[in-house]
Amino acid sequence: MNHSRQRDAHSTNVTRVQHRVSGDMRTERNGHAGAVLWFTGLSGAGKSTLAVQLEQRLFCDGYQVYVLDGDNLRHGLSADLGFQPADREENIRRVGELAALFAEAGFIVICAFISPYCTHRNNARKASGAEFHEIYIKADLETCEARDTKGLYAKARAGDIPDFTGISAPYEAPTSCELVVDTNRVTVEESLAQILAHVQHAFPLTRR
Amino acid sequence: MNHSRQRDAHSTNVTRVQHRVSGDMRTERNGHAGAVLWFTGLSGAGKSTLAVQLEQRLFCDGYQVYVLDGDNLRHGLSADLGFQPADREENIRRVGELAALFAEAGFIVICAFISPYCTHRNNARKASGAEFHEIYIKADLETCEARDTKGLYAKARAGDIPDFTGISAPYEAPTSCELVVDTNRVTVEESLAQILAHVQHAFPLTRR
Repeated sequence: MNHSRQRDAHSTNVTRVQHRVSGDMRTERNGHAGAVLWFTGLSGAGKSTLAVQLEQRLFCDGYQVYVLDGDNLRHGLSADLGFQPADREENIRRVGELAALFAEAGFIVICAFISPYCTHRNNARKASGAEFHEIYIKADLETCEARDTKGLYAKARAGDIPDFTGISAPYEAPTSCELVVDTNRVTVEESLAQILAHVQHAFPLTRR
Repeated sequence: MNHSRQRDAHSTNVTRVQHRVSGDMRTERNGHAGAVLWFTGLSGAGKSTLAVQLEQRLFCDGYQVYVLDGDNLRHGLSADLGFQPADREENIRRVGELAALFAEAGFIVICAFISPYCTHRNNARKASGAEFHEIYIKADLETCEARDTKGLYAKARAGDIPDFTGISAPYEAPTSCELVVDTNRVTVEESLAQILAHVQHAFPLTRR
């Protein structure tokens, strides 16, 4: 063992380990700050549809953007969790922490989760060191149940899915959030335009 | 309720939700593919030091790069976990899933974790849909204990930290991995140069 080398390595460890690529450096590189866009709403309100279309539009504009939703979380990071209240809380906690890391890494991260409880959404907001915009994708239960894109409401009504938000578990609508998009009243295209305008105003690109 | 609008929204949901920004689009944008660089080794081997310096160098070269390590995981996503074997397994499982998402989003994600068990590291590899390079940051226990940058080995020897890798818990060295960097024998600067050369060869930038 070479002791002078060993001491070098030791002192280098101590003095250099804190130097991270800063948020400002990432903002300068990407042309925009990192941020969390948190979509909440009933199943069938349009969260995933709008999230994926927003991702496409923002990407084409030049943003670094990524969607977190049930598709890429429930089969991976949260594959060990069910839909009981405690599991839902843990799932949303993980998404909040994950979103915070993506925002720190410079991304506009779009989270599309029913996230029915105010306290869980507020915890996600607290986890984020970056800006956090809660966007309520609003549609009433009647509309969502009539759409029933995935056939989940029918199963929930038949008792085949327990703890289903809106049927057998509560949904707490946001009382104060950064944007409300009412998909009862406007088309997908109009909803997307509203969110896009909000994002472009809140997180303008400094270059393309 | 406007039924024609409702049907529009319904059919739009069904047909458009699958269109994600593709990996190829992200590779084209960033000038490199997403990938996982998984650093494994004993506490004090130099994983975090090298991870952070590699992040800086790759970022300055033009890569989208981000470090996952104990600092940003153990206080957030894995704050509910301890260091018992089952908790370590769950922590590494989460890191593996998280790294997979970062790589899918286009990042070179550098994971710096002791990750002492081969099976856990192999599970992380399986979780990743992107390229996964396991990099063994190799230093023998004597060297790491002599460095003891954080004073953890002294505490482990005193029995104040249970299940400490190398002292009271095993470390399974990789038997086949993409790169071995022997920090017993080379300086931090030389170690960094070896990893940088490996990454630049494996994931070349198509533009700056």
